[in-house]
Amino acid sequence: MAGLSQERIVQIERDILGKNDDLANVNRARFAEVGVFALNLVSSPGAGKTSLLVKTISDLKDLQPIAVIEGDQQTSNDAERIRATGVPAVQVNTGKGCHLDASMVGAAFDRLPSIHDGLLFIENVGNLVCPAAFDLGEAHKVVVFSTTEGEDKPLKYPDMFAASSLMLINKIDLLPHLDFDLARTIEYARRVNPRIEVLTVSARSGEGMPAFYAWIAKRAAAVASGVAAK
Amino acid sequence: MAGLSQERIVQIERDILGKNDDLANVNRARFAEVGVFALNLVSSPGAGKTSLLVKTISDLKDLQPIAVIEGDQQTSNDAERIRATGVPAVQVNTGKGCHLDASMVGAAFDRLPSIHDGLLFIENVGNLVCPAAFDLGEAHKVVVFSTTEGEDKPLKYPDMFAASSLMLINKIDLLPHLDFDLARTIEYARRVNPRIEVLTVSARSGEGMPAFYAWIAKRAAAVASGVAAK
Repeated sequence: MAGLSQERIVQIERDILGKNDDLANVNRARFAEVGVFALNLVSSPGAGKTSLLVKTISDLKDLQPIAVIEGDQQTSNDAERIRATGVPAVQVNTGKGCHLDASMVGAAFDRLPSIHDGLLFIENVGNLVCPAAFDLGEAHKVVVFSTTEGEDKPLKYPDMFAASSLMLINKIDLLPHLDFDLARTIEYARRVNPRIEVLTVSARSGEGMPAFYAWIAKRAAAVASGVAAK
Repeated sequence: MAGLSQERIVQIERDILGKNDDLANVNRARFAEVGVFALNLVSSPGAGKTSLLVKTISDLKDLQPIAVIEGDQQTSNDAERIRATGVPAVQVNTGKGCHLDASMVGAAFDRLPSIHDGLLFIENVGNLVCPAAFDLGEAHKVVVFSTTEGEDKPLKYPDMFAASSLMLINKIDLLPHLDFDLARTIEYARRVNPRIEVLTVSARSGEGMPAFYAWIAKRAAAVASGVAAK
């Protein structure tokens, strides 16, 4: 295109992803050094990532230090919602960009107070495509998927479900009002990623959230003991 | 990054968008030549674009020729759902890509039968970021936004709402079960785009759909008479 061959564009994409992977490994080493367990939350816009974080933080903040990095094209609404829970949050605005990258996360982590042996939640830009390819240095990607989005999304956006360790199916309080086949959704997700774990939750009612907290504790312990670091 | 300066990346993006705009104008001229009115439907994944199209086609297909171009990262599920209504549909898979471009749409249009004086619906990849920047040759972008996505999305993803002529607020049958402030959503969309038109619909119950059909008829007539061609 305009003097750029397809091969050249593919090479540029490879360069950008390679550089990002290097920076992600720097982030991962920094997190490990201070015992921070980092999760990268990805989803469509409106799946309920921020509500889920607000509920999680309210329930867990007295047990360990927590901090949040918020990604959005525009606004600092989400960081403000997080700060209202009493934990520190840094907002990153990506402008035209459709995902966070490792460089943004490293710079945001510098601006957070120390959370030694704590939890770092990174809420990515709401997007089922772009964030899949970008490692931020997290221990795991967690894809939040809401019951209102339709069963076929794991097949239509396979990269994101393949890249995630856990699928949180949110808004299960709405199930009685929807035509939504939960079993089929899980089957489709496992077709794309046979190892993906699945939990059903409602950030609004709190249903299922304790199982998510147990998952975090188990996975954080595994990373701390060096068993499952990526 | 890896030998690519920020300035060089910006220049590459400009080249890609410039080339796309040229091809979009070719598409637009081709549509005009055969009296085709084209709409580019954009939304988050799961907002209900395909269900809305299936309902629209069922109600309008006896009045005029209709065809559909379907964009998804993977699968041909949506084209199959459309073909089940009896109108032709071409599926485009974008692979790693997060949006359709004018070149894909031109090639897909070649594969469709003639729809002289008809309607062409282009269903973009579910994504509130990437499709905003890419003109496909459509008369208008229509952003489909569902009541389950939260009021703040027009502020958080402003480019998409700024680029759209119409916001269809879908899934209004779920309003009794949600904490969703319809008036605030509209206020936020108008803050980003004072000229955006707004209709509330339910593709499932059919509520509000006739107003969407009236909007299509009015806008198609305007394009046909040369008043509002983009």
